[in-house]
Amino acid sequence: GVLGSGDFARSLAVRLVCSGFRVVVGSRNPKRKANLFPAAAEVTFQAEAVKKADVVFVAIFREHYSTLCDLADVLVGKILVDVSNNTEINHHKESNAEYLASLFPACTVVKGFNVVSAWTLQSGARDGNKQVLICSNNQEAKRTVAEIAQVMGFTPVDMGCMSSAREIENIPLRLLPAWKIPIFLALGLFLCFFTYNLIRQVIHPYIREQKNKLYKIPIEVVNTTLPCVSYVMLSLVYLPGVLAACSQLYYGTKYRRFPDWLDQWLQHRKQIGLLSFFCAALHAVYSLCLPMRRSHRYLLIETAVKQAVEKKMTIWVEEEVWRMEIYISVGIIALGLLSLLAITSLPSIANSLNWREFSFIQ
Amino acid sequence: GVLGSGDFARSLAVRLVCSGFRVVVGSRNPKRKANLFPAAAEVTFQAEAVKKADVVFVAIFREHYSTLCDLADVLVGKILVDVSNNTEINHHKESNAEYLASLFPACTVVKGFNVVSAWTLQSGARDGNKQVLICSNNQEAKRTVAEIAQVMGFTPVDMGCMSSAREIENIPLRLLPAWKIPIFLALGLFLCFFTYNLIRQVIHPYIREQKNKLYKIPIEVVNTTLPCVSYVMLSLVYLPGVLAACSQLYYGTKYRRFPDWLDQWLQHRKQIGLLSFFCAALHAVYSLCLPMRRSHRYLLIETAVKQAVEKKMTIWVEEEVWRMEIYISVGIIALGLLSLLAITSLPSIANSLNWREFSFIQ
Amino acid sequence: GVLGSGDFARSLAVRLVCSGFRVVVGSRNPKRKANLFPAAAEVTFQAEAVKKADVVFVAIFREHYSTLCDLADVLVGKILVDVSNNTEINHHKESNAEYLASLFPACTVVKGFNVVSAWTLQSGARDGNKQVLICSNNQEAKRTVAEIAQVMGFTPVDMGCMSSAREIENIPLRLLPAWKIPIFLALGLFLCFFTYNLIRQVIHPYIREQKNKLYKIPIEVVNTTLPCVSYVMLSLVYLPGVLAACSQLYYGTKYRRFPDWLDQWLQHRKQIGLLSFFCAALHAVYSLCLPMRRSHRYLLIETAVKQAVEKKMTIWVEEEVWRMEIYISVGIIALGLLSLLAITSLPSIANSLNWREFSFIQ
Repeated sequence: GVLGSGDFARSLAVRLVCSGFRVVVGSRNPKRKANLFPAAAEVTFQAEAVKKADVVFVAIFREHYSTLCDLADVLVGKILVDVSNNTEINHHKESNAEYLASLFPACTVVKGFNVVSAWTLQSGARDGNKQVLICSNNQEAKRTVAEIAQVMGFTPVDMGCMSSAREIENIPLRLLPAWKIPIFLALGLFLCFFTYNLIRQVIHPYIREQKNKLYKIPIEVVNTTLPCVSYVMLSLVYLPGVLAACSQLYYGTKYRRFPDWLDQWLQHRKQIGLLSFFCAALHAVYSLCLPMRRSHRYLLIETAVKQAVEKKMTIWVEEEVWRMEIYISVGIIALGLLSLLAITSLPSIANSLNWREFSFIQ
Repeated sequence: GVLGSGDFARSLAVRLVCSGFRVVVGSRNPKRKANLFPAAAEVTFQAEAVKKADVVFVAIFREHYSTLCDLADVLVGKILVDVSNNTEINHHKESNAEYLASLFPACTVVKGFNVVSAWTLQSGARDGNKQVLICSNNQEAKRTVAEIAQVMGFTPVDMGCMSSAREIENIPLRLLPAWKIPIFLALGLFLCFFTYNLIRQVIHPYIREQKNKLYKIPIEVVNTTLPCVSYVMLSLVYLPGVLAACSQLYYGTKYRRFPDWLDQWLQHRKQIGLLSFFCAALHAVYSLCLPMRRSHRYLLIETAVKQAVEKKMTIWVEEEVWRMEIYISVGIIALGLLSLLAITSLPSIANSLNWREFSFIQ
Repeated sequence: GVLGSGDFARSLAVRLVCSGFRVVVGSRNPKRKANLFPAAAEVTFQAEAVKKADVVFVAIFREHYSTLCDLADVLVGKILVDVSNNTEINHHKESNAEYLASLFPACTVVKGFNVVSAWTLQSGARDGNKQVLICSNNQEAKRTVAEIAQVMGFTPVDMGCMSSAREIENIPLRLLPAWKIPIFLALGLFLCFFTYNLIRQVIHPYIREQKNKLYKIPIEVVNTTLPCVSYVMLSLVYLPGVLAACSQLYYGTKYRRFPDWLDQWLQHRKQIGLLSFFCAALHAVYSLCLPMRRSHRYLLIETAVKQAVEKKMTIWVEEEVWRMEIYISVGIIALGLLSLLAITSLPSIANSLNWREFSFIQ
């Protein structure tokens, strides 16, 4: 059974029908809504629909849960699936599913399917990887809903008892939570080093020698800033592991919880590492672009003209040649190794490595 | 039970035995074929095999289905699994599975396993992602076959009733259908812009000033063409969304179907976007290669020599320097953002993002 | 039931409790260990725990299996899950699971969960792709454990009967076995070609003309070596397929096994191909870095000065210009095609292609 006639209710009914279930849709105005649903789904009044169904998907907003109270009698003993989402993280004191359970104590409430969008329900029939997080206080009901999810082509994931409902309801609202701190960290470091390099390469020569080097800002200053950020970020990836090891050695046990800041830090290592790689890759691209610039061309021609006028035939400085050759080849190797680390952090590659292989590459 | 002794029948028998099923193979010449099958599988005459089996995999060509008619009596009540493929899309009027069902009305026919190759059956034991599309008019039989697929290590996907069989049979024959239109579109745009740039950069100077600039064709002309194609493709990604929104506003409803051309267009956005990224990336590589060319070197030296002979010490043009610096840094940032979009379209990354994160990145 | 109180036992108990199972932990010192386990898990003496459980996870080292012999009476008829790993490949003559089965002939032993780390058990609740390899001689027991794995959010993979236990136990110890031969092959080829190019570009000019070209070693010599390695590796990808086809034609059958060396070679094609792509990509990066070098700059200026002093206004050589233009554009196209091949070898992309599409791209 499906209660509701919004986008989600319709997509759910379509998918259930396609997966071979008999579907009854309960609506307050079945005549007007019937044409929105697939022909194989029976559209009828709410009380009627609930009577015929064992599992009832409640696809209506939390604000309207109380309108279902008239159905309390027919709902007794049924499994109610709460598929609702909130519009803000931790919007209400209790999760929608717990609120529904408090309204209908004679029903078994299962939280689930809220992480799936109406769009996924309609289009993703062949995308078997998509997960459906499920929780409930009743094991039997949870298993029934998990089986329905499986038949519909999703991967059900048991999230334990009803107290996880709040967490499950927050998932569709989160916005890359693991990236927030690392990105602000990278931006902060970039600003610091950028200011330093700006003073050193542009402002200082201007004040001391009145030389206008403003043209260096968009590329050269950025290009000397990026590897500094990359280095610091890379060291921040490996530092917390060392700190954690020291803490374990100091306290002589590995069962003591790390302080919160260290725990957070340890969990953000992957993101910090990827941003470090991103800065290193940008540095490589900027460096490769250097000889394309007009300024490079002009400086080259000016030097050549000066040498020619002075009839100075050779300008070869062996030390500078070697410094550059070694700098470039070490840079390429470092970027290659960093790329390897980045590739192995792709979920589909990481899943195919065992622990020993993963730590070998690290 | 498995009927047939081809590659697919053998691989199927091996995989079933490995997954712990008892397997009976039916062959018209059991003695000669027995050594092709694993020792744990019993190879016997067809009628014998069918009698012992509940689920019978029909691993023979559609052309030979009628040879099974002798077995009609023993087949009564069995589940027949049609694993066949065609050699052409929509080759026959009815799908193989429907044809089999019409021959044996007393059996339950399930379509499945045709999207899996003999190679995957033999080698992919640990590749749990591989999907098996299943359809049938009988829910019970479908569920039985789905369970077998699951135990064999595949992910069964319910494709609804038997009318989907034709679609399932066409899947192994399709050749990147979603890419066909976007690729022809990109090629068409490339040709148009290439012709325009060829006239502008090579033919026009030749006619007006008799200058031979043919050497520009392989790199410079291509390099000015690529960003044009990329821009147009990128705008074609975002245009249909705007058109769809206008159409919804105009008709005042979101339940009206879009016209077919708009629907097609909306579905190809991802491919168009990836080709746009591909052109942009190629443009970046071509641009980076510019200073490597002999022609670049010669022009540079010629300018230097000319300046030196004229004793003109400075050629610095502040405006040109700035134009190039800004052009390059904006280009790098644009390519970086486009790469981010491309990475999030990788299936394994896209699956780990929720809707809010996905639309944020877009 | 869980026997043991190490990291793995604790993580397993946590995950089982979270997935809705009732968990009893058996320990020799339940009082001291109780606080290590979640509150919902009952921690008691070993015999007590085993009595209450149907499925018993044996999370202790192989060396201590014999200490369980006191429990032999209460263990009769239970399913024992062996989750142990070894520290070396093929360390013992028989696998841990077979050893456990020989100690408790009245129990049903299932091998499983050893490929999952304690870390994955605790953190990966939403990572449904993670596979659990299971094997046992008893189908019923295997299916029970597979169901537990499924409810815990893993993908169980049936690996057949107990004789596969040794293979399953070796999996967490393997270190990129498919990459070993291809990497040594690539290193060997690199060394050969590097020596040849070193003699040709550095040592020979030094001996014949006393010219010091040592600065060429880190970049130019490496850069001429890489495409040679890449070409040879690429040909080694396609050669074994031709050899296999010849062998099949010669013997007139496709059911004859290939000789071992050819079989190995055929199985390493993907890795050889990826290394070939890696060398080609490095060659591209090295080539792009060439104009960044000091030596390039010095040579350019020296040529310009020489021309200016000799008042030679033009140095344009049409043939060299064309050779370079064509070389670069063909190189870009080749690298683009090779990238396409590399991208389609990513597991998540490869899984979404059918056989016809895959062979079309190849």
